[in-house]
Amino acid sequence: MTKTKAVVLLSGGLDSATVLAMVNQQDYEIYALSFQYGQRHEHETNAAQRNVANYEVVEHAVIQLDLTAFSGSALINDISVPKSKTVSDIGNDIPVTYVPARNTIFLSYALGWAESREATDIFVGVNALDYSGYPDCRPEYIDAFQQLANLATKKGVTTPGSIKIHAPLIEMTKAEIIRAGIDLGVDYANTTSCYDPNPAGEACSHCDACLLRLKGFEENGLKDPARYQPHSI
Amino acid sequence: MTKTKAVVLLSGGLDSATVLAMVNQQDYEIYALSFQYGQRHEHETNAAQRNVANYEVVEHAVIQLDLTAFSGSALINDISVPKSKTVSDIGNDIPVTYVPARNTIFLSYALGWAESREATDIFVGVNALDYSGYPDCRPEYIDAFQQLANLATKKGVTTPGSIKIHAPLIEMTKAEIIRAGIDLGVDYANTTSCYDPNPAGEACSHCDACLLRLKGFEENGLKDPARYQPHSI
Repeated sequence: MTKTKAVVLLSGGLDSATVLAMVNQQDYEIYALSFQYGQRHEHETNAAQRNVANYEVVEHAVIQLDLTAFSGSALINDISVPKSKTVSDIGNDIPVTYVPARNTIFLSYALGWAESREATDIFVGVNALDYSGYPDCRPEYIDAFQQLANLATKKGVTTPGSIKIHAPLIEMTKAEIIRAGIDLGVDYANTTSCYDPNPAGEACSHCDACLLRLKGFEENGLKDPARYQPHSI
Repeated sequence: MTKTKAVVLLSGGLDSATVLAMVNQQDYEIYALSFQYGQRHEHETNAAQRNVANYEVVEHAVIQLDLTAFSGSALINDISVPKSKTVSDIGNDIPVTYVPARNTIFLSYALGWAESREATDIFVGVNALDYSGYPDCRPEYIDAFQQLANLATKKGVTTPGSIKIHAPLIEMTKAEIIRAGIDLGVDYANTTSCYDPNPAGEACSHCDACLLRLKGFEENGLKDPARYQPHSI
């Protein structure tokens, strides 16, 4: 019997690595999709490639995105990434690391690629709890994208409702995500989350992404196997 | 008083040139956005640039999109563009010129760019009547994208409903679009619609886009000023 095909968005970060392991547990033929968008953390793409190598992935596409016209985000422009001492110091506002419409662009590409590969299931590692306050990480956003996807595509027109956007981590804390990944054998040494790594790819420990990740490992009584800058922990 | 900013998607085709003229009539500060996506009709981007030169456009961004991974469309891959003798011969099925999720990707970029420019109005020249049967040209699709846009962005979160996707041509016939454009002084010689132009950029007269366009001019009793291959009309 032919397996159902799934497109998995893979950033090289902790969340999408966990999603990949979850999809791998189910009976899917996996198509992994990553993006290079001139982000400071190009190390993420290398991490994504190391990750893919651990699973049976039919195809891993890395698409170059030109987002340089989108001025104003610390992730793609020359603005300092905010640092804090602990998770409780992270502000509640949408931070400067927000890239306008990023997940919408990622999911749009995933939708087009899925259609070209005859896949109807798209998996994305967004997370609405221990996240940085991005609007495009909320359940209502994912629901709206799924609705759009079924109106946007040939497949959605011929078989309404057939396109599914799966966000299995959306209601999980970072600690729960890490626990699930450990149980599935994810090697988190192959992931990187830092918004501001040094040229060697070592994490800073103090950006929102590092703080949330470190707290997640700590709550599981585990040491984060990611590489951190020696002076920074 | 500061003018409201609008992002206008500009393909170089007849429809978006008309939209640009419509937006120019209103009190907007115009940001034009075009894409290069390895399409056969790269001549469209040149046409878009000639078009922009006729209006007061604050910024014209041309973004390179890598869609080569999306096999299966005659517009980006090595598949023959279907030709017909007349408009009535055009099939009712979604044609092979359909590029998966193209308008979703275009609108996603427009949304991100709009947010980075603090624009909340996005104009797109999609048209549900005299079109090629693409699912992402229908009113329900545009409505779904607008809903998504307000959930996806910082601006949509702080001011719900503020992001508007305008598709002013959506219920117009090609003849009505051309009439409106002529009344607004659009120079349609600066537009190109053909899915399969020759290397000189001359249109084929027999792809869906050429047939619909020629019929539109004919119904207005006008000669299409676009350049056609001499043997083909």
